Amino acid sequence: MKITNSSIKQLLNHYKEISVLTKIKAVLEWDLNVNLPPKAAEGRAGQVEYLANQLTALWKKKEFVDLLKKANTNLDKLNEDEKAIVRNLNYANKYYSRIPEEIIAEKEKVTAKAFMVWQKARSENKFRDFLPSLKEIVRLNQIIAKHLEYKENPYDALLDLFEPELTAKHTAELFGIIKPALIDLIKRIQKSKDYQSESPLVDGKFIYPQPEQKHLSQFLMSKMGFDTAAGRMDISAHPFTTSLDQFDVRITTRYLEKDFRDSYSSTVHETGHALYEQEASPEYAQTPLEGGVSFGIHEAMSRFWENMVGKNPEFIRFMSPVFQSFFPEQLSGLTENEFVRLFNLVKPSFIRIEADEVTYSLHIILRFELENALMSGELKPEDAGETWREKSKELFGIVPETDSQGVLQDVHWSYGAMGYFPSYALGNLYGAQLLARMKDSVDFDKDLSKGKLGRIHSWLKENIHVHGSKYLPEELLIKATGKPLDPKYFIEYLEKKYSKIYSL
Amino acid sequence: MKITNSSIKQLLNHYKEISVLTKIKAVLEWDLNVNLPPKAAEGRAGQVEYLANQLTALWKKKEFVDLLKKANTNLDKLNEDEKAIVRNLNYANKYYSRIPEEIIAEKEKVTAKAFMVWQKARSENKFRDFLPSLKEIVRLNQIIAKHLEYKENPYDALLDLFEPELTAKHTAELFGIIKPALIDLIKRIQKSKDYQSESPLVDGKFIYPQPEQKHLSQFLMSKMGFDTAAGRMDISAHPFTTSLDQFDVRITTRYLEKDFRDSYSSTVHETGHALYEQEASPEYAQTPLEGGVSFGIHEAMSRFWENMVGKNPEFIRFMSPVFQSFFPEQLSGLTENEFVRLFNLVKPSFIRIEADEVTYSLHIILRFELENALMSGELKPEDAGETWREKSKELFGIVPETDSQGVLQDVHWSYGAMGYFPSYALGNLYGAQLLARMKDSVDFDKDLSKGKLGRIHSWLKENIHVHGSKYLPEELLIKATGKPLDPKYFIEYLEKKYSKIYSL
Repeated sequence: MKITNSSIKQLLNHYKEISVLTKIKAVLEWDLNVNLPPKAAEGRAGQVEYLANQLTALWKKKEFVDLLKKANTNLDKLNEDEKAIVRNLNYANKYYSRIPEEIIAEKEKVTAKAFMVWQKARSENKFRDFLPSLKEIVRLNQIIAKHLEYKENPYDALLDLFEPELTAKHTAELFGIIKPALIDLIKRIQKSKDYQSESPLVDGKFIYPQPEQKHLSQFLMSKMGFDTAAGRMDISAHPFTTSLDQFDVRITTRYLEKDFRDSYSSTVHETGHALYEQEASPEYAQTPLEGGVSFGIHEAMSRFWENMVGKNPEFIRFMSPVFQSFFPEQLSGLTENEFVRLFNLVKPSFIRIEADEVTYSLHIILRFELENALMSGELKPEDAGETWREKSKELFGIVPETDSQGVLQDVHWSYGAMGYFPSYALGNLYGAQLLARMKDSVDFDKDLSKGKLGRIHSWLKENIHVHGSKYLPEELLIKATGKPLDPKYFIEYLEKKYSKIYSL
Repeated sequence: MKITNSSIKQLLNHYKEISVLTKIKAVLEWDLNVNLPPKAAEGRAGQVEYLANQLTALWKKKEFVDLLKKANTNLDKLNEDEKAIVRNLNYANKYYSRIPEEIIAEKEKVTAKAFMVWQKARSENKFRDFLPSLKEIVRLNQIIAKHLEYKENPYDALLDLFEPELTAKHTAELFGIIKPALIDLIKRIQKSKDYQSESPLVDGKFIYPQPEQKHLSQFLMSKMGFDTAAGRMDISAHPFTTSLDQFDVRITTRYLEKDFRDSYSSTVHETGHALYEQEASPEYAQTPLEGGVSFGIHEAMSRFWENMVGKNPEFIRFMSPVFQSFFPEQLSGLTENEFVRLFNLVKPSFIRIEADEVTYSLHIILRFELENALMSGELKPEDAGETWREKSKELFGIVPETDSQGVLQDVHWSYGAMGYFPSYALGNLYGAQLLARMKDSVDFDKDLSKGKLGRIHSWLKENIHVHGSKYLPEELLIKATGKPLDPKYFIEYLEKKYSKIYSL
């Protein structure tokens, strides 16, 4: 990275403080999720709030904002790295500079309460109890969208916060292509003579002890190339990955005693995120080019490893004797093909986070359509529960009986996040396109059949990881694959994989 | 707590920010000691340094310093709580307000390097390699003492940082009384027909697995009344206790496979610290009256539990079958009296942190005499190694063959701390005086013989813990026992206990 412009040097200096403070906050949040004793919740919330306020002040600091303005007027004099720095600072700064403080404060107040209300409403299955919170959150997001400015659709302004430059129109086009294809594929899979929706190995009769699951997770992380001297693995209720420093990238997983596939998938998924963070070019550390570029590209990495590698039939065949060595009594006598299906069961279901690779994107499409309609005002919050059920019927052919299985299942709205969900499905599309290109130079299935992950890892490192957030998502994808995002790769990938597994 | 004075209210407001930031720093330091991946050391150091600078700025903030000055001129108008708040702020502020910034900066620079130099010098047994660092540290501490001001002795200014109002003269008087008594007692113990210095149970033949040691530690914490909803226990190389919030007090311990007594003592010791922090009056949280008042009183609590409770012969008798249930094969056939001696071996040794309850204070006296002479200039740093050997001969009758067993053994000097050691021995003296008074209302040995810790815990809670740092150490001791510190209680306690164990 070559920085010659003096304004940019000053911006980098200021950003360094933002970066340090952001990582300090990440330490507290990691600890909150992994270690916090119950009575410490309030105290820790106060500590995190203090740091959040400090961070807001740094982003809004006049000297910094002025410098950034100045840099924006001199873009033609900047080199590529410098331009990327200004662009990323503009993105990050947008939220703080355009939205009035009282709106941010009101949203914080509303969501602090909404999370509690949501927890209770979900446990009691009462959407009407959460409805007042949802109304407030939609209203505030509409105001925020107005302040952030958008060309066509208020939802655009929110999508852009999570996936730079993504619009509702483009998302609708992409999803419009994959939706019928997925619905059709699922139907064909369900009609297959080989179809099975459950496995006797995870029906509760067998126990997969935590220590063995942990060793399996460590085996996978090591095989994937996670640098254990620059990170760690712990346990939390909801697996996540976080960077406390360029050399301190931590993942969490969880161990379900009755189903070892859960920790298998979580560990591979989170390690996929972690490799992206660990392998960004060191010169980007503590600059606006540090870390992954977007939620969509991050999910592309994690879901690539989880599904395209971790559940690849050849890799599962390679792993079969490994699984059996960890769980000899539970898994004895299982054939390789049975293992392949065990990890690739396809089944329409209510809960997104338990969904398989094929049905998953439909869960996202449901949320996208709902959020888009809520933001435009077409859909009233009071009708969200009913609309959820209708869409579930359309997409999956099944209707949730309770709100907890439907409109109340996700935490995201309760903390005010709308526009986040599409990143998940986008990750699937990015990943499939990367895979297609990777296969030009990597003998993917053959490597996986031998358990060799080195060339796959290197390809992702060179084409994605090292770039940190220097390129915007679409730019990065074009650089890596030569083409803009095309959903056909994802459909082709699923068709080919599942046709083989289920003899379609 | 009743605060009516408006200046005090403003001071409390400002202090709240200091408190939050101090706890945030404590989270990062706890994580550093418990979790940090090796490559993250530099990044974490930067994060901690950032917070330390923020804290210094808060302590030096002009509005705050002016308010504090104003409060000091109106002391007669303040109530007891308000006076204590001003006093504690004066103490904490002294270091920042009196010492020039360039001296603090120079000390930080010197000690950052000194720690590395010390580690290498200790591992290579070369005091002369550490000598230049020691010279710098003594010189800087002499300058610091001058800035902090003192009446008689430069060492006073340093002692006062760790134990408010303690002087070298008073420490010398106290130590002058216990020194000959301890030397004499040790000699008599060594001549006893029952004397043994080693136990066959911890000679390396037996293994005490970590999971059982952990369960034993949890059993002890629970029995002592540690609130597990407001704290936790983890593992670190050097056991410690830290408060990340009033409801988040964390201890660490460590497990030596060949000696279960190590984790037993550490856990009881650290839980003693933790109870003091957990049980300070909640109204003191985030005020200058939060937490324990001094290092000496903190060591009084931890060493009270470790030695006076944890190694009490009656309690060891009660624990004997518990130990045997955790380690049935290793400890079968051991009599209660053998257990009592196993936990109360007395033996002159070189290493302070491995010392028993009787010899321990002599290790502290050695360091006190050395530091005092270094600070006054009577002793030149180049002669510290030789003086150490002479004093070791005088106090223990043995001479360390290497610097690592002598003058290089402790980490404290390498990070610039002089005046810290006496707190440890002071803790023993405070503890024995508290015990004598406690026995007026608590049937101490009888309770311990039944494993009942409730009344002992309640007495400490009511007389020490709840007061947080409202009273200075001597004031607190007088409040609890009716008398100023008298070392006779410690001598009487040891005489009585060890006469019985070794039939003196």
